[in-house]
Amino acid sequence: MISINENYLKLQSSYLFSEIAKRVSAFQDANPDVKVIKLGIGDVTRALPQSCIKAFHSAIDEMAGNSTFKGYGPEQGYPFLREKIAEHDFQSRAAEITPDEIFVSDGAKCDSGNIQEIFSSDITIAVPDPVYPVYVDTNVMAGRTGKFSNGRYEKIVYLESSEENGFIPDLPKEPVDLIYLCFPNNPTGTTITKSLLKTWVEFARENKALILYDAAYEAFIRDDSLPVSIYEIEGSREVAIEFRSFSKTAGFTGTRCAYTVVPESCIGYDSNGGKHSLHSLWNRRHTTKFNGVSYPVQRAAEAIYSEKGKIEVKNLNDYYLKNAGLIRQEIDKLGYKHVGGENSPYIWVKCNMDSWKFFDLLLKKAGVVCTPGAGFGKCGQGFIRLSAFNNFENVQKAMIRIGKILNR
Amino acid sequence: MISINENYLKLQSSYLFSEIAKRVSAFQDANPDVKVIKLGIGDVTRALPQSCIKAFHSAIDEMAGNSTFKGYGPEQGYPFLREKIAEHDFQSRAAEITPDEIFVSDGAKCDSGNIQEIFSSDITIAVPDPVYPVYVDTNVMAGRTGKFSNGRYEKIVYLESSEENGFIPDLPKEPVDLIYLCFPNNPTGTTITKSLLKTWVEFARENKALILYDAAYEAFIRDDSLPVSIYEIEGSREVAIEFRSFSKTAGFTGTRCAYTVVPESCIGYDSNGGKHSLHSLWNRRHTTKFNGVSYPVQRAAEAIYSEKGKIEVKNLNDYYLKNAGLIRQEIDKLGYKHVGGENSPYIWVKCNMDSWKFFDLLLKKAGVVCTPGAGFGKCGQGFIRLSAFNNFENVQKAMIRIGKILNR
Repeated sequence: MISINENYLKLQSSYLFSEIAKRVSAFQDANPDVKVIKLGIGDVTRALPQSCIKAFHSAIDEMAGNSTFKGYGPEQGYPFLREKIAEHDFQSRAAEITPDEIFVSDGAKCDSGNIQEIFSSDITIAVPDPVYPVYVDTNVMAGRTGKFSNGRYEKIVYLESSEENGFIPDLPKEPVDLIYLCFPNNPTGTTITKSLLKTWVEFARENKALILYDAAYEAFIRDDSLPVSIYEIEGSREVAIEFRSFSKTAGFTGTRCAYTVVPESCIGYDSNGGKHSLHSLWNRRHTTKFNGVSYPVQRAAEAIYSEKGKIEVKNLNDYYLKNAGLIRQEIDKLGYKHVGGENSPYIWVKCNMDSWKFFDLLLKKAGVVCTPGAGFGKCGQGFIRLSAFNNFENVQKAMIRIGKILNR
Repeated sequence: MISINENYLKLQSSYLFSEIAKRVSAFQDANPDVKVIKLGIGDVTRALPQSCIKAFHSAIDEMAGNSTFKGYGPEQGYPFLREKIAEHDFQSRAAEITPDEIFVSDGAKCDSGNIQEIFSSDITIAVPDPVYPVYVDTNVMAGRTGKFSNGRYEKIVYLESSEENGFIPDLPKEPVDLIYLCFPNNPTGTTITKSLLKTWVEFARENKALILYDAAYEAFIRDDSLPVSIYEIEGSREVAIEFRSFSKTAGFTGTRCAYTVVPESCIGYDSNGGKHSLHSLWNRRHTTKFNGVSYPVQRAAEAIYSEKGKIEVKNLNDYYLKNAGLIRQEIDKLGYKHVGGENSPYIWVKCNMDSWKFFDLLLKKAGVVCTPGAGFGKCGQGFIRLSAFNNFENVQKAMIRIGKILNR
């Protein structure tokens, strides 16, 4: 009999974005004349950088000729891309990462979801609250949690981000094995300092734990004192895997390219205490279940490391940061507490009421869509996330509308 | 302590293609003047069809403008592609598959590797021998096998393909839960008739088992009486999932696009015997751990369903089939037994000696690379796989060289 993986039955329905879509669609049906402005989902809206477009076209021309055609490439990505990543994203910041330690993939969501496969099913995981749901759901599927009760899964250690700790979770009070961290944070938009990140690396080293560091939003960091990569922290190479993405960096959400860094010195343990290279394990997983990123897409990604590409990428993200600045400024004027939006495209706003009530208020009175914080976890209750991914003109309009209804 | 998934320690090193590469490279170093011809790996060599190239370019132009730019798409694929697939690949052959049942992905390797996640870890799996190694390895990683001994993993039911059964495995003598089938077959190149495939569907229905049907090579079928899809068989919708790929169909090995069909009526069971929709489970897995295929790639894939695209795809595959025909004809003349190569790009040759010895003979005496059958499993010993994926001129040269050394 073909029996199913019953861990899937523990999963809560992916309520958040479908519920948002339902409410927006009901509102729009009832109010066809209102032009709804979406500051909800974290998806980019601006064209790909010109350098990427040019490289993309040129790679497709190669695919059109028998002598320049490319079939299967290396599953880990072409050397031309891995070398540029290692040089520009790490070595230039004194983070000693080599091209062999870069695994190019089709998305940070895929990688952060798949990475847990190389670990034992009985490790203890620690995830932030509020959090990007993929970290939790993929561990539920793998059987690392108990059932869902009172808004949380049993057996997970939740790392709470709240006003009290400035939305940077405290170190766990108990030993944990696998720790998910994300900075600049989704959904709160907060960043972490080098000295604070160092305490996490030290915790991991002391507890033989591993940090999964999601740096998908690093391109929005403008404060030079902040770490862009966890590998800027001494001692991290043995205890951290980092996820990066071209999605937010260069507008690749619909083009699909990302990468994961697994240092050669990163280790895991077997039940006899024997040490094993996580680089080898991930390499085995990656080459067995993945077949490489589309060649033209890799060429498009490579283009962001050219001199022209770098400027275009900076301009692209400056555009979104200008939006974020406007949102912060207006929310501030209205007297609402908030974090994020400085080195991040997300602004986390304390709404002084239930998340979904505030969502409905903004939708029905202002025609603006946000994301209710409660959808990201228990600690998100009472907050909403505003996203800077839209046109500046739309953000201006949205903030004027919000200003009108919230002005006290 | 960060403990590893110890099932990975049972995996045998992916010996086959790395060993081939090592031997070829050693030979080439010692004989720099010999132009080695590769009829080994199953990778396409011809340019993408012109219709795909045109659509690909045009989609990239959309990504270059803010008003036509595409961010995240539906994880399951865009409706424009799912609708064309359902219509042209299934409904046109009276296989009742709807667009909602199509999950577009970046590769059949990924899908056939990932699908096992939605099943219980204690099901019994049946895999052909010889076989594409991904089916086996992904189940080893998931803990469904015992250790490797005597060339096989414990707990797997091996479905033997041999001269005796015409390289089409017999039905299992014991009940099994998950059955991997691949036709046209990799590596043997054999095809299955509708009446024989019907016996598998009936076996699955009787045993509450599920068939994973890998049809990645269906585009090479020229015999109209052969099934192109398992859904041409009555009763299959409840007991079969099918994998398809644009890789071999349209030269997409480096471009990356494939799809998996999970009918709404396909079911799995929980431990209380309750029925669950495998479509829902796979949808949950796919949307949680995957973020959709690159938009321009989906547009390129869509183009193969245009009138012009269909002709180009047929011509492309006819080209490889002409190569296959030449290989068969020459192998036949030399008096070697063989199957495949008629509705398939692979020819499976009985070499009357050890697979690797024959490999060395062809490499060292003829400068031709094949794939030793022993690399695909115990039953592959004594055979080699020749692939038709190369230029016709190279295949001609290769067969002349092989003729010279094997002529008896």
